Amino acid sequence: MDAYEAIITKRDTRSYLPDPVDPDELDQVLRAARMAGSAKNSQLTRLVVVTDGETRERLAECGDFTGWIGNAPVVIVLVAPVEGGRLFDLGRMAQNLMVAAHDLGLATCPVTFHHQDRLRPVLGLPEDTEGPMAITLGRPGPPDPSRPSAPRLPLDELVHRERWQD
Amino acid sequence: MDAYEAIITKRDTRSYLPDPVDPDELDQVLRAARMAGSAKNSQLTRLVVVTDGETRERLAECGDFTGWIGNAPVVIVLVAPVEGGRLFDLGRMAQNLMVAAHDLGLATCPVTFHHQDRLRPVLGLPEDTEGPMAITLGRPGPPDPSRPSAPRLPLDELVHRERWQD
Repeated sequence: MDAYEAIITKRDTRSYLPDPVDPDELDQVLRAARMAGSAKNSQLTRLVVVTDGETRERLAECGDFTGWIGNAPVVIVLVAPVEGGRLFDLGRMAQNLMVAAHDLGLATCPVTFHHQDRLRPVLGLPEDTEGPMAITLGRPGPPDPSRPSAPRLPLDELVHRERWQD
Repeated sequence: MDAYEAIITKRDTRSYLPDPVDPDELDQVLRAARMAGSAKNSQLTRLVVVTDGETRERLAECGDFTGWIGNAPVVIVLVAPVEGGRLFDLGRMAQNLMVAAHDLGLATCPVTFHHQDRLRPVLGLPEDTEGPMAITLGRPGPPDPSRPSAPRLPLDELVHRERWQD
């Protein structure tokens, strides 16, 4: 798919088929994540790729709005040091991963893990790391009519020219 | 350009030609940013596009490592509410913007503004907003031999399978 088309047609999706993701496709998605830049090229972020069903069910209990994520065949947890605030770098990595997945016809959605005290034992994360976000991944399932496509702000409301305009 | 190719060949670049960016290309880049998802589709992030030379010179004084950014013909400041921590969403938006720019042959680099007290008056930002990061944008200049291409971790060092492995 053309790059611009992939970027503007990628939407977050929570409906998945249970089929496993092809390992070569998963690797391509992970290589896209790998190439995202990081502050001072520090590369302090890591990924934990979870396909095991029992682990995914336990991950579903680690966020306030994550009850559904066990339905995705793959959950990719974004990990960073507790100190240092790497959320911008994690966002860059997540977007590369998700656009590359969309390019392969795979669906993705970011989720927040509010409860690091629950998450760490599930994945065996060291105390000085955290997994604030994850990306669900899989073949798209049927659209959920209760979740309509999210509209975007008009460009001239998003973008201010030269200075902030109230 | 193919989406996967655009994602994996995009590198952060600090060397720019002074030429202005074509308005249609700038709009395409901004539309790519616009389509990045946000937590609960809250869309609380905004962009301030700065091309004015004097304003760019003042922006160069708003970060600890931003002395060079006046050389880029466009600086796009990423703005979010102070409350709520939108760095992950800003990272998603930034990556869409930068990959779309690369697809057009334009160079980009993220920078950090450490000094919000200096930044707010430059852009007229309200006190309840902040611009923690910006993206420089322009036609690529000659490569800087003092800044070699940043290598990436091997995939099996970045990625843990099923659980954290020390």
